Amino acid sequence: MLNFESDYTTGAHPEILKRLNETNFEALSGYCVDKYCKSAKEKIKKAIGTRNADVELLVGGTQTNAIVISTMLKDYEGVIAVDSGHISTHEAGAIEYSGHKILNIKGKDGKLDAKDLKEYLATFFADDNREHMVYPGMVYISHPTELGSIYKKQELKNIYNICKSYKIPLFIDGARLGYGLMSKESDMTLKDFAKLADVFYIGGTKVGALCGEAVVWTKNNKPKNFVTSIKRRGALLAKGRLLGVQFDTLFTDNLYLKISKHAIDMAEKLKKIFKEKKYKFLMDSPTNQIFLIMDNTLIKKLQKKVAFRFWSKYDDKHSVMRFVTSWSTREAEVEEIKEVLTAK
Amino acid sequence: MLNFESDYTTGAHPEILKRLNETNFEALSGYCVDKYCKSAKEKIKKAIGTRNADVELLVGGTQTNAIVISTMLKDYEGVIAVDSGHISTHEAGAIEYSGHKILNIKGKDGKLDAKDLKEYLATFFADDNREHMVYPGMVYISHPTELGSIYKKQELKNIYNICKSYKIPLFIDGARLGYGLMSKESDMTLKDFAKLADVFYIGGTKVGALCGEAVVWTKNNKPKNFVTSIKRRGALLAKGRLLGVQFDTLFTDNLYLKISKHAIDMAEKLKKIFKEKKYKFLMDSPTNQIFLIMDNTLIKKLQKKVAFRFWSKYDDKHSVMRFVTSWSTREAEVEEIKEVLTAK
Amino acid sequence: MLNFESDYTTGAHPEILKRLNETNFEALSGYCVDKYCKSAKEKIKKAIGTRNADVELLVGGTQTNAIVISTMLKDYEGVIAVDSGHISTHEAGAIEYSGHKILNIKGKDGKLDAKDLKEYLATFFADDNREHMVYPGMVYISHPTELGSIYKKQELKNIYNICKSYKIPLFIDGARLGYGLMSKESDMTLKDFAKLADVFYIGGTKVGALCGEAVVWTKNNKPKNFVTSIKRRGALLAKGRLLGVQFDTLFTDNLYLKISKHAIDMAEKLKKIFKEKKYKFLMDSPTNQIFLIMDNTLIKKLQKKVAFRFWSKYDDKHSVMRFVTSWSTREAEVEEIKEVLTAK
Amino acid sequence: MLNFESDYTTGAHPEILKRLNETNFEALSGYCVDKYCKSAKEKIKKAIGTRNADVELLVGGTQTNAIVISTMLKDYEGVIAVDSGHISTHEAGAIEYSGHKILNIKGKDGKLDAKDLKEYLATFFADDNREHMVYPGMVYISHPTELGSIYKKQELKNIYNICKSYKIPLFIDGARLGYGLMSKESDMTLKDFAKLADVFYIGGTKVGALCGEAVVWTKNNKPKNFVTSIKRRGALLAKGRLLGVQFDTLFTDNLYLKISKHAIDMAEKLKKIFKEKKYKFLMDSPTNQIFLIMDNTLIKKLQKKVAFRFWSKYDDKHSVMRFVTSWSTREAEVEEIKEVLTAK
Repeated sequence: MLNFESDYTTGAHPEILKRLNETNFEALSGYCVDKYCKSAKEKIKKAIGTRNADVELLVGGTQTNAIVISTMLKDYEGVIAVDSGHISTHEAGAIEYSGHKILNIKGKDGKLDAKDLKEYLATFFADDNREHMVYPGMVYISHPTELGSIYKKQELKNIYNICKSYKIPLFIDGARLGYGLMSKESDMTLKDFAKLADVFYIGGTKVGALCGEAVVWTKNNKPKNFVTSIKRRGALLAKGRLLGVQFDTLFTDNLYLKISKHAIDMAEKLKKIFKEKKYKFLMDSPTNQIFLIMDNTLIKKLQKKVAFRFWSKYDDKHSVMRFVTSWSTREAEVEEIKEVLTAK
Repeated sequence: MLNFESDYTTGAHPEILKRLNETNFEALSGYCVDKYCKSAKEKIKKAIGTRNADVELLVGGTQTNAIVISTMLKDYEGVIAVDSGHISTHEAGAIEYSGHKILNIKGKDGKLDAKDLKEYLATFFADDNREHMVYPGMVYISHPTELGSIYKKQELKNIYNICKSYKIPLFIDGARLGYGLMSKESDMTLKDFAKLADVFYIGGTKVGALCGEAVVWTKNNKPKNFVTSIKRRGALLAKGRLLGVQFDTLFTDNLYLKISKHAIDMAEKLKKIFKEKKYKFLMDSPTNQIFLIMDNTLIKKLQKKVAFRFWSKYDDKHSVMRFVTSWSTREAEVEEIKEVLTAK
Repeated sequence: MLNFESDYTTGAHPEILKRLNETNFEALSGYCVDKYCKSAKEKIKKAIGTRNADVELLVGGTQTNAIVISTMLKDYEGVIAVDSGHISTHEAGAIEYSGHKILNIKGKDGKLDAKDLKEYLATFFADDNREHMVYPGMVYISHPTELGSIYKKQELKNIYNICKSYKIPLFIDGARLGYGLMSKESDMTLKDFAKLADVFYIGGTKVGALCGEAVVWTKNNKPKNFVTSIKRRGALLAKGRLLGVQFDTLFTDNLYLKISKHAIDMAEKLKKIFKEKKYKFLMDSPTNQIFLIMDNTLIKKLQKKVAFRFWSKYDDKHSVMRFVTSWSTREAEVEEIKEVLTAK
Repeated sequence: MLNFESDYTTGAHPEILKRLNETNFEALSGYCVDKYCKSAKEKIKKAIGTRNADVELLVGGTQTNAIVISTMLKDYEGVIAVDSGHISTHEAGAIEYSGHKILNIKGKDGKLDAKDLKEYLATFFADDNREHMVYPGMVYISHPTELGSIYKKQELKNIYNICKSYKIPLFIDGARLGYGLMSKESDMTLKDFAKLADVFYIGGTKVGALCGEAVVWTKNNKPKNFVTSIKRRGALLAKGRLLGVQFDTLFTDNLYLKISKHAIDMAEKLKKIFKEKKYKFLMDSPTNQIFLIMDNTLIKKLQKKVAFRFWSKYDDKHSVMRFVTSWSTREAEVEEIKEVLTAK
């Protein structure tokens, strides 16, 4: 069975497992203060090119979104996000669980348009009834987005400038950041994110780790007593070494970007095959997620040989389906799907 | 440096790392529905001797307590716990974060006394003002307790009978359950817990896993759509295999209890040494945690050679200090502390 | 200064003040168990034509929405509402404060279309990823809506039938229920609401009371220990008599509907004037709220003589403005606005 | 039937009802920005002797406690209170509903002892594990306390000095503030509270109003966008005039203190009678609440003629019972209870 179901179907990059083995019997303090956590944080700061950053390691993406957002919003604030944003759709209401509303703006191919953001904020602050409404207190975007699209540097600058003019922090969900950075269409480096966001995270779970997301506050703006806020949300990992060793490994010898590039290469190959076979794309995606509009009967047939995921209903006879490559996708798998598709 | 700081200072049992390696490249669905999670759950059900149980795997202890308690309490209810209970002290208010109050009863050596529980409930339900008070909706106990003590089977029966008579579920925090089961003073098996609690968890983090706690509802009484409730709290692990493989390994060939026994053996050895050296015990603890009342100057001196943890202030000159053994404590370490103590 | 700003600019109907005076020195127990609260509840049950109802009296509308919704939703559920619904817009995130998401469907003239609801639910329950999403657990509609529109009986039946087929309760926000019932276009009585909703409330604040909303559960389906849930949310009024006497008065001699009718009569008169003067209506509203699309310079000029409220931006030169009549609107005021408008 | 059940069994002071009547048909904006709210706030600032104060009017006591505490605590903080404090006992978990823990210190006759507070804070900040614990972020005391006791000025100064040295705000629950101020044993005026607290409230519900509590931040330290925070908690009264007119009246011609004094006079008379009749006092209370230790059979007999309330179990044969006077207690009632007691 071929598997293009998601970018978290396999375990960890072998180098990570090796390092977990090698360090296994070292006695280390818990709760992310051990030497591997410290080293990982230092390497991340170096990679993003600033000393004035705070880094914390958390276990998963939804958890990270909920913690970052709820600790940075004020009591009367909510977070702006596009309607297709991960926090808006597939996090089971984790932001609302923290008591805060998501203020939805309609996205374009999964992205927030700077003009729409500007209009939203201008309208809000001109509204006489705004005391009865949720104040926008943060802007959340994903890079890449849930639909695989990415922001150009200028687009991000435009958004960030608006945020700054309203003194509202910009938070970038980088669950798949590596794949965004290695996209052929990307004009950004990791250092740019440190300049164009107040806080962002570098996803590990979907990019070669067993688990783990590294949150970066770019201006030493981490909320005070943050460890207690993590603990309070049940998210403080006792054996912090599990996160430390993983991110230390991912940020050694450029491993994070190297394995991200592989996923992009495989995605490009896969897209080429779909194009040759005249499959219909929902939109052009320059990262590791490919969305196709497929006939429901074809889907059923194909799913006997390939694992891929339902994304949304398209019409009564068609569905949007998602194919995903990852750091661990083997070239042979991509070759093989070519054969399977031929046989349709 | 000798290390008796806690039972989570080392990584995972080597068998677990071996299995993570072996299964690393298998493509598995996320979110704890893969074959290793399923197998782990089946083995746990077998170990506790009932088919009518639901099992879920979570990442950490505070997280597990918060999720189990907040999904099982009704809107107007709180959870009863002793004042030294982990949820009452060292979880940074995670239960209150979920909106619910902890109703404290004074513990005895860390344990809840059945008589005190009975008195509490009788008083509450006789109180004319109870509509203005938080209803007791669950009883939480730890086994072993935070002070290393354990319940005798009859003590647990007494508590459970009171719970049943008030139709209030009993939840047992088993973060160190293995160490409780292997205690020389224990008269209980894992099967007994399935009979004497409505829900309990089998701790992995402190008993040989990198992370992970297995929650068991003993009467198919897991709350509906529980996965969504986990997700909503940011606690659903994407690569569920990490939990599945670990618990599958721990419940193969009795590994969980074997390694727990080792920790107990080491603790007994360590206690013997402390007794020989005339150290003062806070209380008699039959598990892997040892609490000593120590002179503050001695503590400082000793901490240069041995890692162990401050627990609480005793008086102006003395502190309560904690020494902990674990599945990974080497006999040589225990021998060595004997030498260090001799040298005082 | 003429005032059409809202339906809560004046105090209470004089009969209410009279009764508050008459009963002022009677010693009554607190927390809504006194004889006036009991009498009010009985009269309401009689008015809605069923004995199998539970009635509770609360202070305000946002409070009522938040309490009813959060006590009836399960942990993993959210509430469906149209995007213009009061809970979606002008309650400062009170539903999210309770931890629950509002699931928005686009409304039509402020109303939920049964077909859209059906499509939403069918799509949700067909979605393979629904475990990662917020389950729809209640449908919230307002009657009249925030735009002054009302449901026809058949429309409400269609919605309720869908709710029943999915076993999801229907909750009707009746902050202005009286004005809906007395609308010339209404084909419903108070008794119909008892049949076509699981829970609804009869608004007092906007219909002649100083404060107060009467919640009705139509099938003895009030959540257990509800008083404690009210108290927990800081919403239990100590001197419950204030609510009891008011609703007892409003439901004596049909006062609630009589004064509602007056507001409708005044609104009809006002609409006629606007039509004569060729004002542009945002939509046809059959209740006591009138929405006009007005030129921004005209608005400023008119606001020197008449109080009315900004609703939303229409375009760069126009705004949607709201005029509201109430139980206390004097016919002379309506006559006078005719003069003011003439003078434009 | 004589009634000493509580200080909220009657309606409002007649002057308040008179003013509500007189102002009833004035068209006023909602949400506490009308001229009566403004006037009330000004008069309160004058009464407390400072211009640098913020005042807000809320409906009830539990609501006020929950809003003030939850908007002033930081994410990782809880509130210190004595175990008999109202928030600790009879608010159905309203503070925990906001996500925050109450950190209990054992009280002495209902009061917080400055030494105990100092010890608590010193111990907390010396604890190596404090990152896993709830940080103390506010101190809550009641004046008078729930047991009727009051703080001497020096006692309050001692507490406040400790708070200031730890930069933790002091919040005083003044649900019965008037009765505390008029106590024969009081050495404080309203102006002192403005100097010895960061925030406190002046209770209306129990001192002559139908409802209402006036919160005072003494250093212009009201949290930003507070109205939105009130609204979000469902606590913003639409017809704010109801609160404005009441507090404007209570703070005209010293009415608040005058009617408070009457309650104290009645309580002194009542205590004298109990003393003459050799009733056993739980403790000496210098305000309007009297706690007696009474034989259970006597209680039942007496309750046929007098309404008074069960407070707590004393032993198997005795209960602690509470008698309360108020602004509306008639001297004749007190005389009459003398007769009833004689007849025992």
